[in-house]
Amino acid sequence: MTALMPGSTIGILGSGQLGRMLAMAAARLGLKCHIYADAPGPAFDVTAATTIADYTDEAALAAFASVVDVATYEFENIPVDTVAFLSQRVPIRPGVAALACAQDRLAEKQLARELGAMTADYAAVSSYEDLVAAIKALGVPVILKTRRFGYDGKGQVKINAPSDAKAAWEAIRGQPAILEKLVAFKSEVSVVAVRTADGGFAAYDVATNEHRDHILHTSTVPAALPDDAIATAIATTKGIADALSYTGVLAVEFFALDYNRRDVLYVNEIAPRVHNSGHWTIDACAVSQFENHIRAVAGWPIGPTARHSNAVMTNLIGKDVSAWAKLAAEPATCVHLYGKHEARAGRKMGHVTRISPKTA
Amino acid sequence: MTALMPGSTIGILGSGQLGRMLAMAAARLGLKCHIYADAPGPAFDVTAATTIADYTDEAALAAFASVVDVATYEFENIPVDTVAFLSQRVPIRPGVAALACAQDRLAEKQLARELGAMTADYAAVSSYEDLVAAIKALGVPVILKTRRFGYDGKGQVKINAPSDAKAAWEAIRGQPAILEKLVAFKSEVSVVAVRTADGGFAAYDVATNEHRDHILHTSTVPAALPDDAIATAIATTKGIADALSYTGVLAVEFFALDYNRRDVLYVNEIAPRVHNSGHWTIDACAVSQFENHIRAVAGWPIGPTARHSNAVMTNLIGKDVSAWAKLAAEPATCVHLYGKHEARAGRKMGHVTRISPKTA
Repeated sequence: MTALMPGSTIGILGSGQLGRMLAMAAARLGLKCHIYADAPGPAFDVTAATTIADYTDEAALAAFASVVDVATYEFENIPVDTVAFLSQRVPIRPGVAALACAQDRLAEKQLARELGAMTADYAAVSSYEDLVAAIKALGVPVILKTRRFGYDGKGQVKINAPSDAKAAWEAIRGQPAILEKLVAFKSEVSVVAVRTADGGFAAYDVATNEHRDHILHTSTVPAALPDDAIATAIATTKGIADALSYTGVLAVEFFALDYNRRDVLYVNEIAPRVHNSGHWTIDACAVSQFENHIRAVAGWPIGPTARHSNAVMTNLIGKDVSAWAKLAAEPATCVHLYGKHEARAGRKMGHVTRISPKTA
Repeated sequence: MTALMPGSTIGILGSGQLGRMLAMAAARLGLKCHIYADAPGPAFDVTAATTIADYTDEAALAAFASVVDVATYEFENIPVDTVAFLSQRVPIRPGVAALACAQDRLAEKQLARELGAMTADYAAVSSYEDLVAAIKALGVPVILKTRRFGYDGKGQVKINAPSDAKAAWEAIRGQPAILEKLVAFKSEVSVVAVRTADGGFAAYDVATNEHRDHILHTSTVPAALPDDAIATAIATTKGIADALSYTGVLAVEFFALDYNRRDVLYVNEIAPRVHNSGHWTIDACAVSQFENHIRAVAGWPIGPTARHSNAVMTNLIGKDVSAWAKLAAEPATCVHLYGKHEARAGRKMGHVTRISPKTA
């Protein structure tokens, strides 16, 4: 594809902090942004052009398509129909197929297995009878997850005994689901990578992630993983990106398990977007995940993904953000706040990246 | 002073690339910006709130003052009266005294001398007779510079012989001026530093600057200067900032001369703002000059000024910018474009920073 000239306009669906950081990255490159969202959000502060309309408002979507040169989205729960509608009017990256796959936990797992990657054992669950049978087949403990619209632990119920089945099925209100065997993992790691429309690919260094209350707490780079496991993680991510003919930044989360004293990786989740576990790249790489997403979407060359520093990114969740003045006074700490007004519990208000000299 | 809470609004006078990069730095910290300028410019693309009005429009200035929590400016040729008018309504940093000094090449030189720093020999020139006498006193070659409104070599005429006096005087149209002895310098260096309202101070590493056609071409960090010269440059900058009760980022340019095999520094110019020779800090420091200016203006703690990488910043002037696709494909190169439409000769269209592992 031809690279968009500086001065071109990138349309971004979604006004959250990921849209905000995408817009700021586009600005570095002299590209303008137009944010489309159903409500104002953090991204509205950093761009001149905005649209507030429902994601199903075809007139508003058509008007948006007419003023942008290419479009992308900052969250995977955007309706596939919205992306399909736009794609008839303007290039939208990543495309419909990648989005549809990433919205469905079952499709994700199936894709990973087809590509020869490992995952937790799982079974599709469409009915209460399916659930009972799947618990019997997989054993306990297992986790019941809705196939769609899950993030930060939402839409998930742990099942410790067959007798929990009824309550779990009611908790997810009978939505199409997937039952997954609970994995005794040593650590969680993620690969954030970028793929161009013509198949170019580059990955950032693998991060080790720690969660608290099902929300990402820290990402640490470099990850404490042997070289062969790192190579596997990156190769698996490339395989997934290629299989989806992906354009832009994606993230793949893995569980790292100890298997006969070797590190074995299970694909856990695919995110068709810039990812919280890649926020450290703003401060520890020449070109961040946000800029590389914009570059891929705009048909520019992939920017360098090597890190110049080690990094520990820590999310500021809810009231964590009240420590901003203390954090701003720390040495070698990069403070990022998203401009959200209300520090509600569980809300991502910002993050800090603590950098240190690069080790091997 | 009390630190402004995240969500507060910084008013910025000026819509150029410095205002753009200031607004992007403010956004990192969850601070909003309102840009005031007499014409739209690069900063308008990255902020939601803008005012277009003359810098002498008191009604517009008063309205601007009423919607911002603190104000600053991105260029030193803003009328002092504008800043004085605003300062009665809202804190404006740096203040009137610093601006007035930096707008006057004579006052700059006098301040440097009063602080015990060295400068080129100079004489004030208010009339053609002054000029003739000053040429006689200083000898040739000398440079005649208007006291005000000079940047990028504008308002300067070189005088190689006493007979050039008449033409030089006409070239600057008889404006108040300063005649400076031409200095046979080895190199030009600059210190970009930040001072808080309560006297906190930190400097970035000294950069060596190369100019082409009187416009900055490259800034290289670390500078090739001995430690004692670096210490002198930073101490001189701190003395100037303290003398001006300065709040925000300032830059001091020096000529480095060889004097009996020792490096001697002459103060050349004081810029009361973020500076082109500090653009490398975006990519080679945890906290950039832009963020530190915003921090100081907002009463936040100074962020770390240590560099994590070596850096060479190269300006993209005029048609240089047409190489953007090639530059974007380079390894370890950070591309910054300002979103200007027309690549006129001499116009700063963007810059690139090439980073490499830190050396001592």
